[in-house]
Amino acid sequence: MTRAIIDEAPELVLADPRQIRLAARAGRLAGQTSGLARGFVQGNLAILPKDLAGDFLRFCQRNPKPCPLIGVSEPGDPRVPELGADLDIRTDLPRYRIWKNGELVDEPTDITAWWRDDLVAFVIGCSFSFEEALLADGIPLRHIACGSNVPMYRTRIPTNAAGPFHGPLVVSMRPLRPADAIRAIQITSRFPNVHGAPVHIGKPEMIGIVDIGKPDYGEAVPVEDDELPVFWACGVTPQSVIAAARPPFAITHAPGCMLVTDVRNASLSVI
Amino acid sequence: MTRAIIDEAPELVLADPRQIRLAARAGRLAGQTSGLARGFVQGNLAILPKDLAGDFLRFCQRNPKPCPLIGVSEPGDPRVPELGADLDIRTDLPRYRIWKNGELVDEPTDITAWWRDDLVAFVIGCSFSFEEALLADGIPLRHIACGSNVPMYRTRIPTNAAGPFHGPLVVSMRPLRPADAIRAIQITSRFPNVHGAPVHIGKPEMIGIVDIGKPDYGEAVPVEDDELPVFWACGVTPQSVIAAARPPFAITHAPGCMLVTDVRNASLSVI
Repeated sequence: MTRAIIDEAPELVLADPRQIRLAARAGRLAGQTSGLARGFVQGNLAILPKDLAGDFLRFCQRNPKPCPLIGVSEPGDPRVPELGADLDIRTDLPRYRIWKNGELVDEPTDITAWWRDDLVAFVIGCSFSFEEALLADGIPLRHIACGSNVPMYRTRIPTNAAGPFHGPLVVSMRPLRPADAIRAIQITSRFPNVHGAPVHIGKPEMIGIVDIGKPDYGEAVPVEDDELPVFWACGVTPQSVIAAARPPFAITHAPGCMLVTDVRNASLSVI
Repeated sequence: MTRAIIDEAPELVLADPRQIRLAARAGRLAGQTSGLARGFVQGNLAILPKDLAGDFLRFCQRNPKPCPLIGVSEPGDPRVPELGADLDIRTDLPRYRIWKNGELVDEPTDITAWWRDDLVAFVIGCSFSFEEALLADGIPLRHIACGSNVPMYRTRIPTNAAGPFHGPLVVSMRPLRPADAIRAIQITSRFPNVHGAPVHIGKPEMIGIVDIGKPDYGEAVPVEDDELPVFWACGVTPQSVIAAARPPFAITHAPGCMLVTDVRNASLSVI
Protein backbone atom coordinates (compact mmCIF):
# COMPACT_ATOMS: atom_id res chain seq x y z
CA MET A 1 0.00 0.00 0.00
CA THR A 2 2.72 2.42 0.96
CA ARG A 3 4.55 1.47 -2.22
CA ALA A 4 1.61 2.71 -4.28
CA ILE A 5 1.85 6.04 -2.49
CA ILE A 6 5.59 6.20 -3.06
CA ASP A 7 4.90 5.95 -6.79
CA GLU A 8 1.89 8.27 -6.68
CA ALA A 9 3.11 11.05 -4.39
CA PRO A 10 6.53 10.26 -2.92
CA GLU A 11 6.65 13.47 -0.88
CA LEU A 12 3.74 12.23 1.28
CA VAL A 13 5.60 9.41 3.04
CA LEU A 14 7.16 11.84 5.51
CA ALA A 15 4.27 14.33 5.41
CA ASP A 16 2.39 15.60 8.45
CA PRO A 17 -1.36 15.01 8.77
CA ARG A 18 -2.34 18.41 7.34
CA GLN A 19 -0.16 17.84 4.25
CA ILE A 20 -1.90 14.48 3.72
CA ARG A 21 -5.33 16.10 3.96
CA LEU A 22 -4.32 18.93 1.61
CA ALA A 23 -2.97 16.39 -0.90
CA ALA A 24 -6.31 14.54 -0.79
CA ARG A 25 -8.15 17.87 -1.08
CA ALA A 26 -6.09 18.81 -4.16
CA GLY A 27 -6.62 15.40 -5.77
CA ARG A 28 -2.92 14.47 -5.55
CA LEU A 29 -3.72 11.54 -3.18
CA ALA A 30 -6.55 9.15 -4.11
CA GLY A 31 -5.24 5.89 -2.58
CA GLN A 32 -4.77 4.19 0.76
CA THR A 33 -3.39 6.01 3.81
CA SER A 34 -1.71 3.08 5.60
CA GLY A 35 1.79 4.09 6.68
CA LEU A 36 1.28 7.81 6.05
CA ALA A 37 1.77 10.51 8.73
CA ARG A 38 3.17 7.97 11.19
CA GLY A 39 2.29 8.70 14.80
CA PHE A 40 -1.08 10.27 14.02
CA VAL A 41 -4.57 8.82 14.42
CA GLN A 42 -6.45 7.73 11.31
CA GLY A 43 -10.21 7.30 11.42
CA ASN A 44 -13.04 5.41 9.77
CA LEU A 45 -15.77 7.69 8.35
CA ALA A 46 -19.54 7.25 8.34
CA ILE A 47 -21.91 10.04 7.24
CA LEU A 48 -25.67 9.74 7.75
CA PRO A 49 -28.69 12.04 7.44
CA LYS A 50 -29.71 13.75 10.69
CA ASP A 51 -32.87 11.64 11.08
CA LEU A 52 -30.69 8.49 11.42
CA ALA A 53 -27.80 10.13 13.24
CA GLY A 54 -29.38 9.82 16.68
CA ASP A 55 -29.90 6.08 16.21
CA PHE A 56 -26.32 5.65 14.98
CA LEU A 57 -24.92 7.71 17.85
CA ARG A 58 -26.77 5.44 20.30
CA PHE A 59 -25.45 2.40 18.41
CA CYS A 60 -21.86 3.65 18.86
CA GLN A 61 -22.48 4.44 22.54
CA ARG A 62 -23.78 0.90 23.09
CA ASN A 63 -20.93 -0.73 21.13
CA PRO A 64 -17.80 1.17 22.11
CA LYS A 65 -15.34 -1.62 21.23
CA PRO A 66 -16.17 -1.82 17.48
CA CYS A 67 -17.39 1.83 17.28
CA PRO A 68 -15.13 4.09 19.35
CA LEU A 69 -16.23 7.59 18.32
CA ILE A 70 -13.38 10.08 18.13
CA GLY A 71 -15.30 12.91 16.45
CA VAL A 72 -18.82 13.91 15.39
CA SER A 73 -19.73 16.93 13.24
CA GLU A 74 -22.62 19.33 13.77
CA PRO A 75 -25.47 18.61 11.30
CA GLY A 76 -24.61 20.13 7.94
CA ASP A 77 -21.18 21.26 9.10
CA PRO A 78 -18.29 19.56 7.24
CA ARG A 79 -15.75 20.50 9.93
CA VAL A 80 -14.61 18.32 12.85
CA PRO A 81 -12.26 20.78 14.55
CA GLU A 82 -11.27 18.46 17.41
CA LEU A 83 -9.54 16.27 14.81
CA GLY A 84 -7.88 19.05 12.76
CA ALA A 85 -8.36 22.83 12.77
CA ASP A 86 -8.80 23.22 9.02
CA LEU A 87 -10.26 19.77 8.35
CA ASP A 88 -13.03 19.56 5.70
CA ILE A 89 -14.68 16.16 5.76
CA ARG A 90 -15.96 16.66 2.16
CA THR A 91 -12.52 16.81 0.57
CA ASP A 92 -9.83 15.59 2.97
CA LEU A 93 -10.13 11.82 2.54
CA PRO A 94 -8.52 10.30 -0.58
CA ARG A 95 -11.66 8.45 -1.65
CA TYR A 96 -15.26 7.93 -0.50
CA ARG A 97 -18.14 5.56 -1.12
CA ILE A 98 -21.69 6.82 -1.74
CA TRP A 99 -24.52 4.47 -0.73
CA LYS A 100 -28.24 4.68 -1.63
CA ASN A 101 -30.60 2.16 -0.03
CA GLY A 102 -27.62 -0.04 0.78
CA GLU A 103 -26.26 -0.03 -2.80
CA LEU A 104 -22.87 1.41 -3.71
CA VAL A 105 -23.53 4.12 -6.31
CA ASP A 106 -20.25 6.05 -6.58
CA GLU A 107 -16.63 6.16 -5.37
CA PRO A 108 -15.64 9.83 -5.69
CA THR A 109 -12.48 11.51 -4.39
CA ASP A 110 -14.55 14.51 -3.21
CA ILE A 111 -18.10 14.58 -1.80
CA THR A 112 -18.74 18.33 -2.09
CA ALA A 113 -21.37 17.65 -4.78
CA TRP A 114 -23.08 15.11 -2.48
CA TRP A 115 -23.04 17.24 0.68
CA ARG A 116 -26.36 18.23 2.28
CA ASP A 117 -27.19 20.44 5.20
CA ASP A 118 -28.73 17.52 7.13
CA LEU A 119 -25.64 15.27 7.09
CA VAL A 120 -23.74 14.30 10.25
CA ALA A 121 -20.19 12.91 10.00
CA PHE A 122 -18.96 10.25 12.46
CA VAL A 123 -15.25 9.49 12.79
CA ILE A 124 -14.43 6.15 14.43
CA GLY A 125 -11.02 5.06 15.74
CA CYS A 126 -9.02 2.54 13.71
CA SER A 127 -6.59 -0.26 14.52
CA PHE A 128 -3.66 1.50 12.78
CA SER A 129 -3.12 3.37 16.09
CA PHE A 130 -2.75 0.29 18.26
CA GLU A 131 -0.76 -1.55 15.58
CA GLU A 132 1.80 1.24 15.74
CA ALA A 133 2.06 0.72 19.53
CA LEU A 134 2.45 -3.06 19.06
CA LEU A 135 5.19 -2.65 16.44
CA ALA A 136 6.97 -0.09 18.64
CA ASP A 137 7.09 -2.80 21.35
CA GLY A 138 8.67 -5.29 18.95
CA ILE A 139 5.57 -7.44 18.47
CA PRO A 140 5.50 -8.75 14.88
CA LEU A 141 2.23 -8.46 12.94
CA ARG A 142 1.76 -11.18 10.35
CA HIS A 143 -0.46 -9.27 7.90
CA ILE A 144 2.08 -6.44 7.76
CA ALA A 145 4.91 -8.95 7.17
CA CYS A 146 2.74 -10.50 4.41
CA GLY A 147 1.98 -7.07 2.92
CA SER A 148 -1.74 -7.84 3.05
CA ASN A 149 -4.87 -6.45 4.70
CA VAL A 150 -5.66 -7.83 8.17
CA PRO A 151 -8.08 -10.79 8.03
CA MET A 152 -11.55 -9.95 9.36
CA TYR A 153 -14.45 -12.23 10.28
CA ARG A 154 -18.15 -11.87 10.99
CA THR A 155 -18.73 -13.51 14.37
CA ARG A 156 -21.86 -14.80 16.04
CA ILE A 157 -21.36 -12.19 18.79
CA PRO A 158 -24.32 -9.78 18.41
CA THR A 159 -23.89 -6.03 18.69
CA ASN A 160 -26.31 -4.06 20.87
CA ALA A 161 -29.02 -2.72 18.53
CA ALA A 162 -30.19 0.91 18.25
CA GLY A 163 -33.02 1.83 15.86
CA PRO A 164 -32.36 0.17 12.49
CA PHE A 165 -28.73 -0.57 13.34
CA HIS A 166 -27.97 -4.12 14.44
CA GLY A 167 -25.95 -7.13 13.31
CA PRO A 168 -22.95 -9.26 14.19
CA LEU A 169 -19.64 -8.00 15.54
CA VAL A 170 -16.84 -8.08 12.96
CA VAL A 171 -13.38 -8.85 14.36
CA SER A 172 -9.85 -8.56 13.02
CA MET A 173 -7.37 -11.37 13.77
CA ARG A 174 -3.65 -11.25 14.45
CA PRO A 175 -1.73 -14.50 15.19
CA LEU A 176 0.67 -14.04 18.10
CA ARG A 177 2.94 -16.22 20.23
CA PRO A 178 1.50 -16.57 23.76
CA ALA A 179 3.91 -14.15 25.47
CA ASP A 180 3.35 -11.59 22.69
CA ALA A 181 -0.42 -12.10 23.01
CA ILE A 182 -0.24 -11.25 26.73
CA ARG A 183 1.85 -8.15 26.00
CA ALA A 184 -0.52 -7.16 23.16
CA ILE A 185 -3.47 -7.36 25.56
CA GLN A 186 -1.63 -5.03 27.96
CA ILE A 187 -0.71 -2.55 25.22
CA THR A 188 -4.07 -2.40 23.47
CA SER A 189 -5.91 -2.10 26.82
CA ARG A 190 -4.33 1.35 27.03
CA PHE A 191 -6.12 2.42 23.82
CA PRO A 192 -9.90 2.09 24.36
CA ASN A 193 -10.57 4.75 21.69
CA VAL A 194 -9.07 2.54 18.97
CA HIS A 195 -10.87 -0.74 19.84
CA GLY A 196 -8.96 -1.43 23.08
CA ALA A 197 -8.22 -4.94 24.37
CA PRO A 198 -9.02 -8.03 22.30
CA VAL A 199 -12.51 -9.49 22.59
CA HIS A 200 -11.36 -13.10 22.17
CA ILE A 201 -8.22 -15.27 22.12
CA GLY A 202 -7.73 -18.80 20.80
CA LYS A 203 -10.68 -21.08 19.91
CA PRO A 204 -12.20 -19.28 16.87
CA GLU A 205 -15.14 -21.74 16.86
CA MET A 206 -16.40 -20.28 20.14
CA ILE A 207 -17.28 -17.01 18.37
CA GLY A 208 -18.69 -18.64 15.23
CA ILE A 209 -15.61 -18.62 13.01
CA VAL A 210 -15.75 -21.93 11.13
CA ASP A 211 -12.57 -21.60 9.03
CA ILE A 212 -9.80 -19.25 10.12
CA GLY A 213 -8.37 -19.59 6.59
CA LYS A 214 -11.45 -17.96 5.06
CA PRO A 215 -11.91 -14.42 6.35
CA ASP A 216 -15.05 -12.46 5.38
CA TYR A 217 -12.96 -9.33 4.68
CA GLY A 218 -9.23 -8.78 4.10
CA GLU A 219 -6.87 -11.65 3.36
CA ALA A 220 -6.01 -14.89 5.18
CA VAL A 221 -2.65 -15.18 6.98
CA PRO A 222 -1.04 -18.35 8.37
CA VAL A 223 -1.43 -19.15 12.09
CA GLU A 224 1.56 -21.22 13.22
CA ASP A 225 1.45 -24.06 15.77
CA ASP A 226 3.13 -21.93 18.43
CA GLU A 227 0.68 -19.04 17.96
CA LEU A 228 -2.79 -18.17 19.19
CA PRO A 229 -5.26 -16.24 17.03
CA VAL A 230 -6.09 -13.00 18.85
CA PHE A 231 -9.31 -11.16 17.92
CA TRP A 232 -10.06 -7.45 18.20
CA ALA A 233 -13.38 -5.66 17.60
CA CYS A 234 -13.14 -4.10 14.14
CA GLY A 235 -14.18 -0.78 12.61
CA VAL A 236 -15.72 -2.68 9.69
CA THR A 237 -18.59 -3.50 12.10
CA PRO A 238 -20.31 -0.08 11.73
CA GLN A 239 -19.97 -0.21 7.93
CA SER A 240 -21.45 -3.70 7.88
CA VAL A 241 -24.30 -2.57 10.16
CA ILE A 242 -25.03 0.53 8.03
CA ALA A 243 -25.02 -1.56 4.83
CA ALA A 244 -27.52 -3.99 6.42
CA ALA A 245 -29.78 -1.13 7.57
CA ARG A 246 -30.00 0.13 3.96
CA PRO A 247 -30.48 3.82 4.79
CA PRO A 248 -31.75 5.99 1.89
CA PHE A 249 -28.40 7.81 1.85
CA ALA A 250 -25.00 7.29 3.46
CA ILE A 251 -21.35 8.05 2.78
CA THR A 252 -18.32 6.13 4.08
CA HIS A 253 -14.59 6.21 3.36
CA ALA A 254 -13.39 3.80 0.66
CA PRO A 255 -11.53 0.81 2.16
CA GLY A 256 -8.11 1.88 3.45
CA CYS A 257 -8.66 5.53 2.48
CA MET A 258 -8.94 6.89 6.01
CA LEU A 259 -9.24 10.35 7.52
CA VAL A 260 -5.77 11.38 8.73
CA THR A 261 -6.18 13.53 11.87
CA ASP A 262 -3.96 15.88 13.88
CA VAL A 263 -4.44 13.74 17.01
CA ARG A 264 -1.33 11.84 18.09
CA ASN A 265 -1.69 8.07 18.59
CA ALA A 266 0.21 8.35 21.88
CA SER A 267 -2.32 10.88 23.19
CA LEU A 268 -5.06 8.21 23.03
CA SER A 269 -3.30 6.10 25.67
CA VAL A 270 -5.36 6.22 28.88
CA ILE A 271 -2.40 5.28 31.07
CA MET B 1 -8.73 -24.69 54.41
CA THR B 2 -10.89 -21.96 55.86
CA ARG B 3 -13.13 -24.66 57.34
CA ALA B 4 -10.19 -25.98 59.39
CA ILE B 5 -9.70 -22.48 60.78
CA ILE B 6 -13.39 -22.15 61.57
CA ASP B 7 -13.08 -25.28 63.72
CA GLU B 8 -9.72 -24.28 65.17
CA ALA B 9 -10.22 -20.60 65.92
CA PRO B 10 -13.61 -19.37 64.65
CA GLU B 11 -13.00 -15.79 65.78
CA LEU B 12 -10.18 -15.44 63.23
CA VAL B 13 -12.34 -15.52 60.10
CA LEU B 14 -13.24 -11.85 60.50
CA ALA B 15 -9.99 -10.87 62.24
CA ASP B 16 -7.69 -8.09 61.09
CA PRO B 17 -4.07 -8.87 60.14
CA ARG B 18 -2.64 -8.03 63.59
CA GLN B 19 -5.12 -10.37 65.27
CA ILE B 20 -4.05 -13.16 62.91
CA ARG B 21 -0.38 -12.56 63.71
CA LEU B 22 -1.07 -12.43 67.46
CA ALA B 23 -3.05 -15.69 67.23
CA ALA B 24 -0.09 -17.33 65.47
CA ARG B 25 2.27 -15.82 68.06
CA ALA B 26 0.16 -17.20 70.90
CA GLY B 27 -0.04 -20.66 69.30
CA ARG B 28 -3.81 -20.43 68.74
CA LEU B 29 -3.33 -20.59 64.93
CA ALA B 30 -1.06 -23.26 63.49
CA GLY B 31 -2.78 -23.90 60.11
CA GLN B 32 -3.26 -22.32 56.72
CA THR B 33 -4.04 -18.62 56.29
CA SER B 34 -6.04 -18.77 53.03
CA GLY B 35 -9.21 -16.71 53.36
CA LEU B 36 -8.12 -14.97 56.59
CA ALA B 37 -7.92 -11.17 56.97
CA ARG B 38 -9.51 -10.62 53.58
CA GLY B 39 -8.24 -7.56 51.75
CA PHE B 40 -4.71 -7.76 53.17
CA VAL B 41 -1.51 -8.95 51.52
CA GLN B 42 -0.12 -12.34 52.52
CA GLY B 43 3.51 -13.17 51.83
CA ASN B 44 5.82 -16.11 51.21
CA LEU B 45 8.77 -16.26 53.63
CA ALA B 46 12.41 -17.17 52.98
CA ILE B 47 15.12 -16.72 55.63
CA LEU B 48 18.79 -17.15 54.79
CA PRO B 49 22.13 -16.47 56.50
CA LYS B 50 23.68 -13.11 55.64
CA ASP B 51 26.46 -14.67 53.53
CA LEU B 52 23.82 -15.99 51.07
CA ALA B 53 21.41 -13.07 51.40
CA GLY B 54 23.20 -10.91 48.83
CA ASP B 55 23.02 -13.68 46.23
CA PHE B 56 19.34 -14.27 46.98
CA LEU B 57 18.54 -10.56 46.83
CA ARG B 58 20.17 -10.41 43.38
CA PHE B 59 18.20 -13.51 42.37
CA CYS B 60 14.96 -11.77 43.33
CA GLN B 61 15.99 -8.58 41.54
CA ARG B 62 16.68 -10.58 38.38
CA ASN B 63 13.45 -12.58 38.59
CA PRO B 64 10.77 -10.12 39.68
CA LYS B 65 7.82 -12.10 38.31
CA PRO B 66 8.29 -15.22 40.49
CA CYS B 67 10.09 -13.34 43.31
CA PRO B 68 8.44 -9.95 43.91
CA LEU B 69 10.04 -8.77 47.14
CA ILE B 70 7.65 -6.87 49.40
CA GLY B 71 9.88 -6.73 52.48
CA VAL B 72 13.44 -7.53 53.65
CA SER B 73 14.67 -7.46 57.27
CA GLU B 74 17.95 -6.08 58.51
CA PRO B 75 20.43 -8.90 59.33
CA GLY B 76 19.58 -10.39 62.73
CA ASP B 77 16.50 -8.20 63.12
CA PRO B 78 13.22 -10.17 63.23
CA ARG B 79 11.12 -7.11 62.43
CA VAL B 80 9.85 -6.01 58.99
CA PRO B 81 8.12 -2.77 59.97
CA GLU B 82 6.97 -1.85 56.44
CA LEU B 83 4.68 -4.90 56.58
CA GLY B 84 3.38 -4.46 60.14
CA ALA B 85 4.48 -2.19 62.99
CA ASP B 86 4.67 -4.89 65.66
CA LEU B 87 5.45 -7.79 63.32
CA ASP B 88 7.92 -10.43 64.64
CA ILE B 89 8.96 -12.78 61.86
CA ARG B 90 9.99 -15.44 64.44
CA THR B 91 6.51 -15.98 65.84
CA ASP B 92 3.86 -14.43 63.62
CA LEU B 93 3.46 -17.16 60.97
CA PRO B 94 1.35 -20.18 61.91
CA ARG B 95 4.03 -22.72 60.94
CA TYR B 96 7.57 -22.77 59.52
CA ARG B 97 9.94 -25.21 57.86
CA ILE B 98 13.59 -25.53 58.93
CA TRP B 99 16.05 -26.71 56.28
CA LYS B 100 19.65 -27.90 56.71
CA ASN B 101 21.66 -28.64 53.55
CA GLY B 102 18.42 -28.87 51.60
CA GLU B 103 16.81 -31.37 54.01
CA LEU B 104 13.65 -30.59 55.97
CA VAL B 105 14.54 -31.03 59.66
CA ASP B 106 11.64 -29.46 61.57
CA GLU B 107 8.21 -27.84 61.17
CA PRO B 108 7.84 -25.65 64.26
CA THR B 109 5.14 -23.05 64.98
CA ASP B 110 7.79 -20.65 66.34
CA ILE B 111 11.42 -20.13 65.21
CA THR B 112 12.66 -18.15 68.22
CA ALA B 113 14.89 -21.09 69.20
CA TRP B 114 16.34 -21.20 65.66
CA TRP B 115 16.92 -17.46 65.27
CA ARG B 116 20.48 -16.19 64.75
CA ASP B 117 21.93 -12.72 64.48
CA ASP B 118 23.11 -13.33 60.90
CA LEU B 119 19.66 -14.22 59.45
CA VAL B 120 17.90 -12.07 56.83
CA ALA B 121 14.15 -12.53 56.20
CA PHE B 122 12.69 -12.07 52.71
CA VAL B 123 8.95 -11.64 52.22
CA ILE B 124 7.70 -12.31 48.68
CA GLY B 125 4.27 -11.40 47.27
CA CYS B 126 1.71 -14.17 46.81
CA SER B 127 -1.09 -14.87 44.35
CA PHE B 128 -3.78 -14.60 47.04
CA SER B 129 -3.74 -10.83 46.42
CA PHE B 130 -4.45 -11.03 42.69
CA GLU B 131 -6.94 -13.87 43.17
CA GLU B 132 -8.95 -11.56 45.41
CA ALA B 133 -8.99 -8.95 42.60
CA LEU B 134 -10.06 -11.59 40.05
CA LEU B 135 -12.89 -12.86 42.26
CA ALA B 136 -14.01 -9.28 42.96
CA ASP B 137 -14.39 -8.87 39.17
CA GLY B 138 -16.57 -11.98 38.94
CA ILE B 139 -13.93 -14.23 37.35
CA PRO B 140 -14.38 -17.79 38.65
CA LEU B 141 -11.27 -19.65 39.85
CA ARG B 142 -11.50 -23.40 39.38
CA HIS B 143 -9.19 -24.47 42.23
CA ILE B 144 -11.20 -22.38 44.68
CA ALA B 145 -14.46 -23.90 43.38
CA CYS B 146 -12.83 -27.33 43.80
CA GLY B 147 -11.60 -26.46 47.32
CA SER B 148 -8.08 -27.50 46.33
CA ASN B 149 -4.63 -25.92 46.08
CA VAL B 150 -3.82 -24.27 42.74
CA PRO B 151 -1.97 -26.63 40.35
CA MET B 152 1.69 -25.70 39.86
CA TYR B 153 4.22 -26.93 37.30
CA ARG B 154 7.97 -26.80 36.81
CA THR B 155 8.53 -25.33 33.36
CA ARG B 156 11.51 -25.40 31.04
CA ILE B 157 11.69 -21.60 31.32
CA PRO B 158 14.98 -20.89 33.15
CA THR B 159 15.24 -18.28 35.88
CA ASN B 160 18.13 -15.80 35.78
CA ALA B 161 20.83 -17.22 38.07
CA ALA B 162 22.57 -15.39 40.94
CA GLY B 163 25.32 -17.11 42.95
CA PRO B 164 24.10 -20.62 43.89
CA PHE B 165 20.49 -19.81 43.06
CA HIS B 166 19.21 -21.04 39.71
CA GLY B 167 16.64 -23.42 38.30
CA PRO B 168 13.39 -23.56 36.37
CA LEU B 169 10.47 -21.17 36.73
CA VAL B 170 7.50 -22.70 38.56
CA VAL B 171 4.08 -21.52 37.35
CA SER B 172 0.55 -21.76 38.71
CA MET B 173 -2.31 -22.49 36.30
CA ARG B 174 -5.89 -21.27 36.27
CA PRO B 175 -8.25 -22.39 33.47
CA LEU B 176 -10.30 -19.47 32.14
CA ARG B 177 -12.74 -18.82 29.30
CA PRO B 178 -11.09 -16.58 26.65
CA ALA B 179 -12.91 -13.35 27.60
CA ASP B 180 -12.13 -13.98 31.29
CA ALA B 181 -8.50 -14.70 30.38
CA ILE B 182 -8.22 -11.30 28.65
CA ARG B 183 -9.80 -9.57 31.66
CA ALA B 184 -7.53 -11.52 34.04
CA ILE B 185 -4.47 -10.33 32.11
CA GLN B 186 -5.68 -6.74 32.51
CA ILE B 187 -6.38 -7.12 36.23
CA THR B 188 -3.19 -8.93 37.20
CA SER B 189 -1.07 -6.51 35.13
CA ARG B 190 -2.01 -3.93 37.77
CA PHE B 191 -0.31 -6.02 40.48
CA PRO B 192 3.39 -6.48 39.59
CA ASN B 193 4.27 -6.97 43.27
CA VAL B 194 2.20 -10.15 43.43
CA HIS B 195 3.46 -11.85 40.23
CA GLY B 196 1.74 -9.47 37.79
CA ALA B 197 0.50 -10.55 34.35
CA PRO B 198 0.59 -14.18 33.24
CA VAL B 199 3.80 -15.50 31.66
CA HIS B 200 1.99 -17.86 29.27
CA ILE B 201 -1.46 -18.70 27.91
CA GLY B 202 -2.67 -21.83 26.11
CA LYS B 203 -0.23 -24.43 24.67
CA PRO B 204 1.32 -25.90 27.87
CA GLU B 205 3.78 -27.94 25.76
CA MET B 206 5.54 -24.73 24.67
CA ILE B 207 6.83 -24.21 28.24
CA GLY B 208 7.66 -27.86 28.89
CA ILE B 209 4.45 -29.01 30.59
CA VAL B 210 3.88 -32.54 29.26
CA ASP B 211 0.65 -33.39 31.12
CA ILE B 212 -1.58 -30.60 32.42
CA GLY B 213 -3.33 -33.27 34.55
CA LYS B 214 -0.15 -33.95 36.54
CA PRO B 215 1.02 -30.83 38.37
CA ASP B 216 4.34 -30.89 40.23
CA TYR B 217 2.78 -29.12 43.23
CA GLY B 218 -0.83 -28.58 44.32
CA GLU B 219 -3.68 -30.53 42.80
CA ALA B 220 -4.95 -31.00 39.22
CA VAL B 221 -8.15 -29.23 38.13
CA PRO B 222 -10.17 -29.87 34.96
CA VAL B 223 -9.61 -27.60 31.92
CA GLU B 224 -12.83 -27.51 29.86
CA ASP B 225 -13.00 -27.36 26.04
CA ASP B 226 -14.05 -23.70 26.11
CA GLU B 227 -11.19 -22.68 28.42
CA LEU B 228 -7.52 -21.80 28.00
CA PRO B 229 -4.94 -22.69 30.66
CA VAL B 230 -3.42 -19.41 31.91
CA PHE B 231 -0.03 -19.54 33.64
CA TRP B 232 1.38 -17.13 36.24
CA ALA B 233 4.90 -17.05 37.72
CA CYS B 234 4.64 -18.69 41.14
CA GLY B 235 6.11 -17.97 44.58
CA VAL B 236 7.08 -21.64 44.86
CA THR B 237 9.93 -20.80 42.46
CA PRO B 238 12.18 -19.26 45.16
CA GLN B 239 11.51 -22.19 47.53
CA SER B 240 12.36 -24.65 44.76
CA VAL B 241 15.53 -22.71 43.95
CA ILE B 242 16.59 -22.53 47.61
CA ALA B 243 15.97 -26.28 48.06
CA ALA B 244 18.13 -27.02 44.99
CA ALA B 245 20.94 -24.73 46.24
CA ARG B 246 21.07 -26.76 49.53
CA PRO B 247 22.25 -23.92 51.76
CA PRO B 248 23.61 -25.01 55.16
CA PHE B 249 20.65 -23.33 56.86
CA ALA B 250 17.35 -21.83 55.71
CA ILE B 251 13.84 -21.25 57.02
CA THR B 252 10.64 -20.93 54.97
CA HIS B 253 6.94 -20.79 55.78
CA ALA B 254 5.13 -24.14 55.80
CA PRO B 255 2.91 -24.51 52.69
CA GLY B 256 -0.16 -22.28 52.96
CA CYS B 257 0.93 -20.84 56.33
CA MET B 258 1.72 -17.35 55.09
CA LEU B 259 2.75 -14.10 56.75
CA VAL B 260 -0.36 -11.92 57.04
CA THR B 261 0.67 -8.26 56.63
CA ASP B 262 -0.95 -4.89 57.33
CA VAL B 263 -0.59 -3.90 53.64
CA ARG B 264 -3.88 -3.73 51.75
CA ASN B 265 -4.14 -5.73 48.52
CA ALA B 266 -5.67 -2.72 46.79
CA SER B 267 -2.64 -0.59 47.67
CA LEU B 268 -0.43 -2.84 45.50
CA SER B 269 -2.30 -1.83 42.35
CA VAL B 270 0.00 0.34 40.21
CA ILE B 271 -2.87 1.94 38.30
